[in-house]
Amino acid sequence: MLKTDYNKLTMTDIAELRTYIADPDRFITKPTEHWDHDQMKQVRAMPSLVIQPVNNEEVMKVVKYANDHRIPLVPRGNSTGLMGANLTVHKGISLDMVKMNKVLDYDPGSLTMTVQAGIRLNDMDKFLADKPFTYMPAPAMHWATIGGNVNTNAGGLKAIKYGVTREHIRELKVVLAAGKLYHFGSKAVKASSGYSLKDLIIGSEGTLGVVTEVTVRLYPRPKETINAVIPFDTLDHAIESVPAIQASGVVPTTVEFMGRKVLNLWEKTYEDHFPIENGDGFIIIGLDAFTKEELKAQMDAIEKVTSQMHGEKPIVMEADSPEAKKIWEARESLLFAIQKSTPQMDEIDVSVPINHIPDVLHRINELEKEENIRIPNFGHAGDGNLHIYVCSDEMTPDEFNKKMNKVVSELYKVARNVDGNMSGEHGVGYARKDFFEQFYGKDMLELMRKIKRTLDPHGIINPDKIFPIK
Amino acid sequence: MLKTDYNKLTMTDIAELRTYIADPDRFITKPTEHWDHDQMKQVRAMPSLVIQPVNNEEVMKVVKYANDHRIPLVPRGNSTGLMGANLTVHKGISLDMVKMNKVLDYDPGSLTMTVQAGIRLNDMDKFLADKPFTYMPAPAMHWATIGGNVNTNAGGLKAIKYGVTREHIRELKVVLAAGKLYHFGSKAVKASSGYSLKDLIIGSEGTLGVVTEVTVRLYPRPKETINAVIPFDTLDHAIESVPAIQASGVVPTTVEFMGRKVLNLWEKTYEDHFPIENGDGFIIIGLDAFTKEELKAQMDAIEKVTSQMHGEKPIVMEADSPEAKKIWEARESLLFAIQKSTPQMDEIDVSVPINHIPDVLHRINELEKEENIRIPNFGHAGDGNLHIYVCSDEMTPDEFNKKMNKVVSELYKVARNVDGNMSGEHGVGYARKDFFEQFYGKDMLELMRKIKRTLDPHGIINPDKIFPIK
Repeated sequence: MLKTDYNKLTMTDIAELRTYIADPDRFITKPTEHWDHDQMKQVRAMPSLVIQPVNNEEVMKVVKYANDHRIPLVPRGNSTGLMGANLTVHKGISLDMVKMNKVLDYDPGSLTMTVQAGIRLNDMDKFLADKPFTYMPAPAMHWATIGGNVNTNAGGLKAIKYGVTREHIRELKVVLAAGKLYHFGSKAVKASSGYSLKDLIIGSEGTLGVVTEVTVRLYPRPKETINAVIPFDTLDHAIESVPAIQASGVVPTTVEFMGRKVLNLWEKTYEDHFPIENGDGFIIIGLDAFTKEELKAQMDAIEKVTSQMHGEKPIVMEADSPEAKKIWEARESLLFAIQKSTPQMDEIDVSVPINHIPDVLHRINELEKEENIRIPNFGHAGDGNLHIYVCSDEMTPDEFNKKMNKVVSELYKVARNVDGNMSGEHGVGYARKDFFEQFYGKDMLELMRKIKRTLDPHGIINPDKIFPIK
Repeated sequence: MLKTDYNKLTMTDIAELRTYIADPDRFITKPTEHWDHDQMKQVRAMPSLVIQPVNNEEVMKVVKYANDHRIPLVPRGNSTGLMGANLTVHKGISLDMVKMNKVLDYDPGSLTMTVQAGIRLNDMDKFLADKPFTYMPAPAMHWATIGGNVNTNAGGLKAIKYGVTREHIRELKVVLAAGKLYHFGSKAVKASSGYSLKDLIIGSEGTLGVVTEVTVRLYPRPKETINAVIPFDTLDHAIESVPAIQASGVVPTTVEFMGRKVLNLWEKTYEDHFPIENGDGFIIIGLDAFTKEELKAQMDAIEKVTSQMHGEKPIVMEADSPEAKKIWEARESLLFAIQKSTPQMDEIDVSVPINHIPDVLHRINELEKEENIRIPNFGHAGDGNLHIYVCSDEMTPDEFNKKMNKVVSELYKVARNVDGNMSGEHGVGYARKDFFEQFYGKDMLELMRKIKRTLDPHGIINPDKIFPIK
């Protein structure tokens, strides 16, 4: 059992902690609403104290104090999460990392860049804009922090070709519970030198330590990119084309799927028009290469495959053409269109082997009927990660919660049966922790609790996330 | 402290264990020399008993018995290791996995293949030969098992573009000390669902559990490949060209480096002729793409970069041309040429940021003079992993060991100072465990010991590897 006998912050604690932080503006004893929710707003919790550190030393001191005095401490990025992972559900300190936002070391010789954990992805992009290298992963939320991305192992749109956040992290600096700073990983590409604690931290949702610095891999910026939309008679056929495209030797940068139904919703909400009339399911494919000729040859190969699978002619667009912008705008605003269509919603982002996406979609269709509930969705056909939104519409909160739990539980069953994961990129957080044991079993739960206890014996670092505290 | 009060195998133990294994040929009570060494032969240890399981159930029973009776158990693949990681240095059971060598599930729909851990890479290649997909990592030792590759996080020649073994493993089945079978990871591409225990196992050199099944990512087989050798006036210039090539937007599949000195040794040993007269340092570059035109454009870009860095015109070769074969033959037999040139040798495979390879090479040159010892080397310019061979030549074994320790210690210092790793792909094993604390520090050592104890409380799984038992 993890400890739950946490201490409440006293005036003595506050007086001592205040001496660690040079600037009073970064020591917030009366937190506002800003710190009580994440982007989903389903979980709410107000911290007793917010501290915004600017360097490793401040983090080390605060963490050590919290550990010595059994005060829960929850690291926090720019709060783009959806599962409540960064909320102080047992009160205590919110360690808000957004002011640790510097680029520390741009090192093109080793193809790495080291940044503080609180820098936002779009600020990293801005820094790299005039350089020949880029940070390749492409989570849709550009204003998320890299520390948050590390902690959820953020996926994004390019996982099919370039992998997820994990594959692009070379080194982490992490403050563990006792307040010591560790370097996990190195700037080198290869490692066979002991347990990869770097990889244990990645995806741990801030429950094992506080990530303070991140060394990312820089990737040569692709010279040429292109997009295409391919309409299919059915969404199943659209999705089934993905392994076939790869069997032809083409590895797209991105393959997203959207059905006509969710596009109708988008059109209605935005009073806009999706520029393609025919087809019931679509994939948007992105390609990159060194030359335009390579892109053309790959697109020809894709067309050959998809034409045999009830696909229409690909509508090819230069990456910065107005058509491409409209299509991506639709794709990127689907979430907001859904959000606008309902007073309340919740999200499921199961990740399944790519050939099992239709299994999930079929179960969604059944559940919409069985439960009389609206469940719009879209997702990453290239990597099997779905974004599924359960809408409250006219339901009472109680009714919605009940149906939501049923839908979550049923879709987790499908994902589990096809050897998938609860979450592809949003994490388990606080919102889904009670489903962890059902999905992964008691043995796995106990093993993870042991790991947690090994790195955080008093259970003070972001308690009660991923799996229940006891 | 880890426990060291292991029990010796008794006749009772043997009688009980024998009942778990259906076929007496796979229960070897009088192990021969075959099981007392790895490829380097520097560490020697004869097991008390060798068991060759064929399925998970046998592994679970044997591991549980070993754990309950405090008998050390060491998993073993095809023994291509160099650091003694798979030897029974505290006696006990050698769990020889080579008969768990089946392909269990070829699943092109999810772009995965599941195999038993004892299958050899070249048998996986053979299975995939007529399929459109390949297992991308390319460790030079094709007869190693996939389980061994997982346990050392094997690197190989293609890490620069495709990453190391870690990036190609989707799921592992692992028997932990208590004898239970766990699934770590899934067939899905993305995961943000609890701690990545899969990644904790990868690179753990068989010290945390027994890997029994491995699900690998299948990658579309590249359509077109090409090789080139580029001679440079100096080896430093050859190596310095690598980040510059990538800044031009080209990501090669492979970049190997070789100096004239090690090639002279190869020529002498094999009475053969390296077909390029000029240049003191060379890189061999491999490229792959969908079209020949893409390869040509990339090669032109490479030439433009290297010509500004004292490189000569690239000597471009079709991948299966006689010239390419000769060059790769030289590269692949360098190790054996060195081995033939000396009665005894030992190896160091530090991994450093790619722009710091010359730092290591310069220190090697100094050490050759300071210690009057021969240290031929070559390596992966694309990923910063060096293969450094310390030769005994006319020294006595004592003298050699002393100098070897000095050289290892000095080169680890260089790697450590530039934020590199002790080992890129060969592991720490038994041979280098005493350097672990010097390289990574006491805090890291203690943390790793805690992790070890969490997964293997009695310290029976491959004890005394990576770091000292106490």
